[in-house]
Amino acid sequence: MTVAELLASLDRAALGERMHALAGRAFPICRSITGDGVRRTLELVRERVPLVVTEVPSGTQVLDWVVPPEWNIREAWIADRAGRRIVDFQESNLHVVGYSEPVRARMGLAELRPRLHTLPGQPDLIPYRTSYYERTWGFCLPHHRLEQMQDTEYDVCIDSTLEPGSLTYGELLLPGTSAEEVLISCHVCHPSLANDNLSGLAVATQLAELLGRTEHRYSYRFLFVPATIGAITWLARNPDCADRVRHGLVLTCVGDSGDITYKRSRRGTAPIDRAAEHVLRHNGAGFQLRDFSPIGYDERQYCSPGFDLATGCFMRSPHGTFPEYHTSADNMSFIRPAALSDSLMTVLEIFRVLEDDRRFQNLQPYGEPQLGRRGLYRALGGETAPGAQIALLWVLNLSDGHQSLLDIAERARLPFGTVARAADILMGHELLRETA
Amino acid sequence: MTVAELLASLDRAALGERMHALAGRAFPICRSITGDGVRRTLELVRERVPLVVTEVPSGTQVLDWVVPPEWNIREAWIADRAGRRIVDFQESNLHVVGYSEPVRARMGLAELRPRLHTLPGQPDLIPYRTSYYERTWGFCLPHHRLEQMQDTEYDVCIDSTLEPGSLTYGELLLPGTSAEEVLISCHVCHPSLANDNLSGLAVATQLAELLGRTEHRYSYRFLFVPATIGAITWLARNPDCADRVRHGLVLTCVGDSGDITYKRSRRGTAPIDRAAEHVLRHNGAGFQLRDFSPIGYDERQYCSPGFDLATGCFMRSPHGTFPEYHTSADNMSFIRPAALSDSLMTVLEIFRVLEDDRRFQNLQPYGEPQLGRRGLYRALGGETAPGAQIALLWVLNLSDGHQSLLDIAERARLPFGTVARAADILMGHELLRETA
Amino acid sequence: MTVAELLASLDRAALGERMHALAGRAFPICRSITGDGVRRTLELVRERVPLVVTEVPSGTQVLDWVVPPEWNIREAWIADRAGRRIVDFQESNLHVVGYSEPVRARMGLAELRPRLHTLPGQPDLIPYRTSYYERTWGFCLPHHRLEQMQDTEYDVCIDSTLEPGSLTYGELLLPGTSAEEVLISCHVCHPSLANDNLSGLAVATQLAELLGRTEHRYSYRFLFVPATIGAITWLARNPDCADRVRHGLVLTCVGDSGDITYKRSRRGTAPIDRAAEHVLRHNGAGFQLRDFSPIGYDERQYCSPGFDLATGCFMRSPHGTFPEYHTSADNMSFIRPAALSDSLMTVLEIFRVLEDDRRFQNLQPYGEPQLGRRGLYRALGGETAPGAQIALLWVLNLSDGHQSLLDIAERARLPFGTVARAADILMGHELLRETA
Repeated sequence: MTVAELLASLDRAALGERMHALAGRAFPICRSITGDGVRRTLELVRERVPLVVTEVPSGTQVLDWVVPPEWNIREAWIADRAGRRIVDFQESNLHVVGYSEPVRARMGLAELRPRLHTLPGQPDLIPYRTSYYERTWGFCLPHHRLEQMQDTEYDVCIDSTLEPGSLTYGELLLPGTSAEEVLISCHVCHPSLANDNLSGLAVATQLAELLGRTEHRYSYRFLFVPATIGAITWLARNPDCADRVRHGLVLTCVGDSGDITYKRSRRGTAPIDRAAEHVLRHNGAGFQLRDFSPIGYDERQYCSPGFDLATGCFMRSPHGTFPEYHTSADNMSFIRPAALSDSLMTVLEIFRVLEDDRRFQNLQPYGEPQLGRRGLYRALGGETAPGAQIALLWVLNLSDGHQSLLDIAERARLPFGTVARAADILMGHELLRETA
Repeated sequence: MTVAELLASLDRAALGERMHALAGRAFPICRSITGDGVRRTLELVRERVPLVVTEVPSGTQVLDWVVPPEWNIREAWIADRAGRRIVDFQESNLHVVGYSEPVRARMGLAELRPRLHTLPGQPDLIPYRTSYYERTWGFCLPHHRLEQMQDTEYDVCIDSTLEPGSLTYGELLLPGTSAEEVLISCHVCHPSLANDNLSGLAVATQLAELLGRTEHRYSYRFLFVPATIGAITWLARNPDCADRVRHGLVLTCVGDSGDITYKRSRRGTAPIDRAAEHVLRHNGAGFQLRDFSPIGYDERQYCSPGFDLATGCFMRSPHGTFPEYHTSADNMSFIRPAALSDSLMTVLEIFRVLEDDRRFQNLQPYGEPQLGRRGLYRALGGETAPGAQIALLWVLNLSDGHQSLLDIAERARLPFGTVARAADILMGHELLRETA
Repeated sequence: MTVAELLASLDRAALGERMHALAGRAFPICRSITGDGVRRTLELVRERVPLVVTEVPSGTQVLDWVVPPEWNIREAWIADRAGRRIVDFQESNLHVVGYSEPVRARMGLAELRPRLHTLPGQPDLIPYRTSYYERTWGFCLPHHRLEQMQDTEYDVCIDSTLEPGSLTYGELLLPGTSAEEVLISCHVCHPSLANDNLSGLAVATQLAELLGRTEHRYSYRFLFVPATIGAITWLARNPDCADRVRHGLVLTCVGDSGDITYKRSRRGTAPIDRAAEHVLRHNGAGFQLRDFSPIGYDERQYCSPGFDLATGCFMRSPHGTFPEYHTSADNMSFIRPAALSDSLMTVLEIFRVLEDDRRFQNLQPYGEPQLGRRGLYRALGGETAPGAQIALLWVLNLSDGHQSLLDIAERARLPFGTVARAADILMGHELLRETA
C-alpha cells in the first residue's frame, strides 16, 4: 500500500477517537524534561509502535549543554494551620513548579508569597511554570485561591528528588527504499497539558502506526523528546543527521479547533515548505502560514545554522496565541478527535506529496501527443476539458525533466493528487518516463 | 518604410472595413480541418497576398499524429414525412457535425435523438460540433426546433465523403534583413464562425499585406492552418523551426468588441510577452493578461516542450468566455470593423517594439552630456522637463550596452515609441552607438 | 565615540537651531554656479569645518562640459521715469535672472516685457530663473507688480560681469579606518532659497562637524558644489572615484515640514538603499520611497553609467512638488529647526547602519547555545521572550558568515540597533566572531 492508497482508505472518525484516547491515558502523568513521567509516557507509545528508548546519563555534555539531574516528585502541597491542603499536587501536577527542589517548612504568607505563581487575568486557572536550570521551588495556583489565603502560617512540602539519573527519549525508524529521511519530532516533557503536547504525541504515534503499514520511498524517523534539551541531546548523538534528513516536521498543538498553522523552515522554500503550503491551499479549509523565526519549539534546534535541517512546524493554534496555552485549561476537553484526525490527514497528505514528487520526461515532446486514439480525450469537440484532462495536458507540457510534479501542480493550480494521477496514466501509455 | 512609419500612416477605418469584407466573403464557406472549404478560403487570401499552399496526403505521419482522410460535403438535411426539410445544411453549415460520415436513412425520433445536438440554455442558437477522429454523424440545431419535432419518422441525409485526399495549409514568408522569424498563426478550419476564426484570418492577411510594404529586420512567417492537426503538420515538416523562430503570435477571436486579452507564452517572460504587455499597458484601453496554460489554440503545439517556441496568443474575448462562442451567434454582425482594426494596430505596435528593440552604448557615459549646446535642452532653468526630454535622460542613463530600449521604457514607465525616438535623436548627435 | 554612541548623545533641539542659524546667515548672499556668492557661502561653512576650497578656471574642459565664465553682480534694477526703483536686486537677489549679462538701457514696456518673468498663478511671489549657457538678461518679479506697470518707458540696469574667472567648490574628507568612502553632496548655487538648498548645506555641515568627533570605519567625503557643473567638475577631477566611493547621498530640500523622501540609487538595491529604507521603516514617521530616475539633483551625475556610484537622494518634500519651490516663498520661515534636526538624525542613523553592518559566524552553530548559564535568558519558563532576547536568537540563527546584521534585521523585522546590540552581547560571550 502506498501513502496515497493509505490516505484513501482511512476512517477519520475512528482515528480521531484512537488518538484522543491515547492522549487521555497520558494526560494524568507528571512529565518533565527527565524522570519517570517521560518513561511512563513512552511506555504508552510503545504499546502501539516499537519505540526504541534511549537513556542519556545526567552530566553528559550535549553540544553546548549538559544533561541535567533527573527530577522526580512524589507529593507536594501547601497546608493551612488546620492541616487542610489548600494546594495539592495530587489534584493537578501543574500545581508545582517543574524541577522544584525539595522543601519541607512552615512559613508565613509574606515569606511564601514570592513562591506562588498565579494568573491574575485568568483567576480560575493554574499556570504552568518550570525552572530547569536555576535551582528554586514554587507552587502554581488559581489567583482566586491565592486571594483567599490568610496572612498566617502555612506548612509547605515538596517531596522531590534532583539526582544523577538520565534523560529519556524515544525514537522509531521506519526504513524506506531510500536512506533519505523525513524527521517527525514532538516534545514529551509537558505535564498535564493536552494540546501542548499530548496532541503532538498522539498524532506522531498514529502516523508511525499507519506509515508502518505502507511501502514508502523515504525513511521516516520519529522522535519523542523533551523540548530543547531532548532535541539537543538527539542532535549531539547524531551529528551526521544532516546527511540523511531531507525533510522535517515538528508537531505541536495539533488538537485544538483552530485552523492549521504551518511555520516554514529556516530555508523558507524547502520542499517540505512547498508541500505543506500546497496541501493547505488545496484543502478547502482556512490556514495560516508563518515565516521561520527562532522562537517556537524544537524547529529552533533542527534549524540551527550548523544543522539547518529543512524542518517546519505543524500546528493548529500556535503556542502563546490561545488563552488556554500553558494553563490548566489546556485539558482533555480542549482537544478534539476531529481536530487530531484533521491534523493527521493533513500531515499524511504532505508526506504523500514528498513521496510522489518526481520529475518526468515527456516521450512525445514535439506537439501534443494524440490523446484521442489512446482513449484519453473527449471524442466530440467543443466541450470544455474537465480537470483530469487538463492535468494530462499540463504534465505533458511541463515534463521536460526539470520540473517536478509539485512544480507542475503549482503552476497549473491543480491539486497534487490530480497531477500525480495524470502522470500515472501517462506512464501507463508510455508517454512519460521518470528522470533522475 | 519602417514598421514605425507604417503605423503612423494607416487609415484605421478603411482597414477595418477591408478586413470585415474579407471575413464576410469567407463566412459562407463550409470549412473543416481538410477539404475544399479550406482550399476555397485560402484562395480568397491569395487574392491579397502570395500565399504558398501545401497539400499533405491523408495517411502521412506527422509527429504523433496521422493526417486524416479528407472530408467533403455536398448536402445534409432532416426532412419530415411531408418532405419538409426541418434542418438543412444549405441554411447553415453548422447544422452538420463536422466530419460526419455519409448517411441516408429513415428513422424514428427516438433513434435519431442521440444524433441531434442542441443548446438548451441558448435555445435559438445552433451549436458547433465536430468529430474528427471518431467516426460518427450528427446534426446541430436550435433547441427550440428540436422541441417542435414530433415523435414520428424522419428522412435523414448527409451526402459527405471521407476519403484519402490531403490536408491543406497556407504559408507566407516575408523575408527580413535577418533570418530570425516572427511566426503568426491562425486557424482556418472553422465553418461559419466569424470571430473564431475569420477574424484571425482577416487580421493575419492584412498584417501580411501591410508588412509586405515595409523594410523589416525580422522575417515574418504567416501560417493559415487547420487547428491542431494543421499546426502539427507544419511543425512535423519544419522540425528545425526552433532555430529560426524568435517570437510568435497565435491570432484568434480578434474581432469582437471585448478588451484585448494576451496569453503569455510557455516561457512567460519572453520578449514577445514583454512587448505585448508593454504595448497594452500604454494603449490607454482595458486589457487582460493571462498566464500560459496548455488549453487554448495552436500555442499549445508551438509551446510543446520539444519546440518551446516563444508564442503567445493574441485575442479579444478568449474562447469559451463569450456566449456566442461556438454557436451560430458568432456571425458577421458579432465582429466589428473597429475591433478588427484595433487588433491589427495593436499587433503592429507589438511588432514595432520587436523591430526596434535594441541595445545602445552611451558614448559620453561620465556625467550627463551637455544637452544644451546640442539644442536638446530647455534654455531657461526652472521648468519641468517634458516627456521627450525625460526620455533622452533615461536613454543616456541606462544605455550601458546591457539594457535594451524595452528595458529602458519599462523602467522609465514611458511608451516604447518615446524612448525609441529619444534613441534616434541621440544617435543623430553621436551620443549613442548600437551594440550587439 | 562611535556613530552609534554619537547618536545617543545628541541634543536635537540645539542642533536644529544651530543648523537653522547657519542657513540664516547664508540666506541673503546672492549665489550662482560661479562667483563670489559661492565663495562667501563656503567661508561660512569653513567657520565650522576645515573645508578645502578648489577654484577651477573658466574654460577648463570637464567631461563633456566647459567651466563657464564667472558671474558677479553688484546691482540691478528697473526704475520708472520718476526714478523710483520698482524692481530692485537689493530687495531680493531672485529679482535678476541668474547669469544675466550687463545692461544699461531705457526702453518701453513692450520691449521690456519679454525680459520680465512672473508666476501668474502665484502673483505675490518672485520666481527663480537662470540662464547659465545661453546669453541673455532678465528680471523676475511678482505678477501683481507687473500688472501695475504702466505702458511707458523704464530705465533698466544690470551691473554684472561675465568674465574669465573660476568655478569654486568645497570639499572635506574625514578619513576612517578604511579608505572606502561615503560621499555626501549638496548644491550651493541657489541664491536666497532656503529649503533648496541652504537646508542641505546646513545639514551637511552639521554632519561633518559631528562625524569629525567620532571614530568611523568609512571615510566620509563632503562636497559643497554648484549643481550639475560643480558635480561634473568634481567627477572630472576624480575619475577614479568609483574605486573608493561605496555609498553616497545627495542632500536637498531637507528643511521643510514634509515627510522624508528617499530616492533610490540607480542600482536600486545598493546597501545605501537598503539602509535608508530600513531606517525609515523603523522610524515611526511617515516616509516616501522613490525609484531612481535621471531627473533630480546631482545623483544624476554620480549615477551616470560611467561612474554608477551608489548614490541616493535624501529629501523631505521633493523638488517641484511643493508650491514654494523655486520662488521667494522658499524663505527662512519655510524651513524649521525640528525638520533640519530630524533630517540630520535620520542620515546619521543610516550612516550608523553602514558603519555597523557586518557579517558574523556563530561559534556554537549546532543547536542553540545555552543562554541561561551565560545570564542571557529569562530564568522561569513560560513567559514570552522580550525583543532584545529575540534578537539574540535571530543573530545566532542567521550568523552563518553570509548574512549581515542588516540582512538579519530585515528578516527579523527588528530595528538594526536592536540586532547590532545583540551581536555585541554575543561577541562579549564569545558566541560570535566577525567574518570578512
